[in-house]
Amino acid sequence: MHYFNSNDLDSLSKVYRLNLINSITGYKSANLIGTQSLNGITNLAIFSSVIHLGSNPALIGFVLRPTTVPRHTYSNLKATGCFTLNTVTKDYIKDAHQTSAKYPEEISEFDVTNFSIEHKRKTNAPYVKESPIQIGCNYENEYHIKENNTILIIGSIKELYISQTLLMDDGWVQLDNENIVTINGLDGYAVPKLIDRFPYARPKS
Amino acid sequence: MHYFNSNDLDSLSKVYRLNLINSITGYKSANLIGTQSLNGITNLAIFSSVIHLGSNPALIGFVLRPTTVPRHTYSNLKATGCFTLNTVTKDYIKDAHQTSAKYPEEISEFDVTNFSIEHKRKTNAPYVKESPIQIGCNYENEYHIKENNTILIIGSIKELYISQTLLMDDGWVQLDNENIVTINGLDGYAVPKLIDRFPYARPKS
Repeated sequence: MHYFNSNDLDSLSKVYRLNLINSITGYKSANLIGTQSLNGITNLAIFSSVIHLGSNPALIGFVLRPTTVPRHTYSNLKATGCFTLNTVTKDYIKDAHQTSAKYPEEISEFDVTNFSIEHKRKTNAPYVKESPIQIGCNYENEYHIKENNTILIIGSIKELYISQTLLMDDGWVQLDNENIVTINGLDGYAVPKLIDRFPYARPKS
Repeated sequence: MHYFNSNDLDSLSKVYRLNLINSITGYKSANLIGTQSLNGITNLAIFSSVIHLGSNPALIGFVLRPTTVPRHTYSNLKATGCFTLNTVTKDYIKDAHQTSAKYPEEISEFDVTNFSIEHKRKTNAPYVKESPIQIGCNYENEYHIKENNTILIIGSIKELYISQTLLMDDGWVQLDNENIVTINGLDGYAVPKLIDRFPYARPKS
């Protein structure tokens, strides 16, 4: 085993530390967050920090880095009160990664990638047509994480579109039926295969 | 596409909604959190909510459900100020899932699974010997998420042990070199294979 103590971690180069610390907590979710500005310019950005917060009510969270540089996702969702989550499949990982480039606000990532806008009934944010899971969310709240000046955004799920291929009889969603990807570190994209599902665990007698 | 509006989501059965909402945000990290009580009883519990919060300082977060039932992980990390994160590999998914059973406090999950305790230099919490990534954390803070009474725990990374097989020259960790798993929903365990890594994305000219 390679060992790093806190002094070792502090003295790493910036890029080495980014790669290392972004990887060690394990695989991350891959979601494209779609938003729209008040003057109608769409934005799409890949996030690896979306988490499940609760099922009833259905709530999600994601972490934004400090607002010291323009963050169109943040300003748009604050202005409109809504955003979409769109899952990423294997055939679109290059496009998904390209949405992390810093485009000026007047350029929509939908125009520079192979993703297509889909507008739906209940939200003022664009969906990604190519995503087999599309979630419409309302902005609920945010928490300032003072330890590193990040922001945890809380969203409530208002509608959900999901491919029939993914949806099992008990509500469980088999993500590998559509080659949904996961993120390894900052820039690695991996495709999982299901090994097993287990029943609700109880103490063994 | 199957469509659920918010009324549909509200009227689902509890189990269906748990399965559905826990799955749709995509793949989740799989970490065993190791803690120890003040009288020396070890605890080990699987968590799918561990997220990367920042690299400098190296910070992680994870979400705990309400403290209406005993939560040994929470009481132990508050009492001792520390905990460990230990990654899960393919051969141990059944044991990892078993740690989610509600054992009484006096029973250590290390005694009812195939995981072995490893004590290390700098922390008063047990590591999992079988894990190729072992992270020692200090408890830093917690945020009460009032929307559903969950708690976001913030931890700082104080030491890290990582298998040489995983660690690449630039600090990136190739998780699939040791069959590290990811979680699909509440109870599905999947093994990813890396497809590609991409360079830092810049706007295309």
